[in-house]
Amino acid sequence: MGFFSKDIKTLDDLFVHTLRDIYYAEKKIEKVLPNMADRASDVSLKDSFDRHRDQTGLHIERLEKVFEMYGAEAKTIGCPAIEGIIEEADEVSGDIDDDKVMDAALIAAAQAVEHYEMTRYGTLIAWARELGRNDCAEILEETLAEERATDQVLTNLAESRINLRSAA
Amino acid sequence: MGFFSKDIKTLDDLFVHTLRDIYYAEKKIEKVLPNMADRASDVSLKDSFDRHRDQTGLHIERLEKVFEMYGAEAKTIGCPAIEGIIEEADEVSGDIDDDKVMDAALIAAAQAVEHYEMTRYGTLIAWARELGRNDCAEILEETLAEERATDQVLTNLAESRINLRSAA
Repeated sequence: MGFFSKDIKTLDDLFVHTLRDIYYAEKKIEKVLPNMADRASDVSLKDSFDRHRDQTGLHIERLEKVFEMYGAEAKTIGCPAIEGIIEEADEVSGDIDDDKVMDAALIAAAQAVEHYEMTRYGTLIAWARELGRNDCAEILEETLAEERATDQVLTNLAESRINLRSAA
Repeated sequence: MGFFSKDIKTLDDLFVHTLRDIYYAEKKIEKVLPNMADRASDVSLKDSFDRHRDQTGLHIERLEKVFEMYGAEAKTIGCPAIEGIIEEADEVSGDIDDDKVMDAALIAAAQAVEHYEMTRYGTLIAWARELGRNDCAEILEETLAEERATDQVLTNLAESRINLRSAA
């Protein structure tokens, strides 16, 4: 990315650069989610990962549409942030045997991913508006709303664990 | 972190591990924020970075209090996620000459940091409750509320840029 950064001079450059960053992140997440679903024990958690994978495919298509509308080539650039988030999830969960502890670690990892996506889409929407491209902003807003909803599902799953524990 | 991960078997281990992860992240952020304030041009943005640095010192103290209450040693462990987020910010902003574009990049970087902190504190609060440690959860909630408020300030700054542009 050091190479690409030399080309960032304008808000337009930043917008395209960040589109390519989240395009990379979404593609990476699409690959990782089936592995997370495999490791989950709770059925609702497994389902949420499966639904999120399907949704991620749609988010990738929307990004490709925004690239096309904006007249920029749809390509990925390395995203050290998402690599770090996923590396951390892998390392933490690597040696957990207990199903319930593994589910807790997976929820935390998935929420870290969601928050990264939410912040990047939020930024892209602000920049699209600043660049006068409300048409691009509207498409990115659909994805942001879905990322927020997924994060809420994960929060609910985390809270239902606490309620279960309290009732035990 | 590979070494540490072998010790994660229980929710208690996960909680302490993640406390150490965010402890590392907060200390890293405390070091990086003065550099971000130096690079910012907008006075409100500079101020928000300065305030955030002061607040980060308080967040570190609160974490040390939680370590003590929980009976765990206050120490850091490497956090690839925050390293990735900061690496990305440095690389993207490295060659920007235009002040307004630099400010846009700095706001985006700071919001990525905030979202990482928000997700980790959210997780720690849920786990503290699950572990029956509402006393620890309450302290962590104070920090989470401040991280959310800082994120909102940054969103407002990003939006005021759009309004300025529209009025121009």
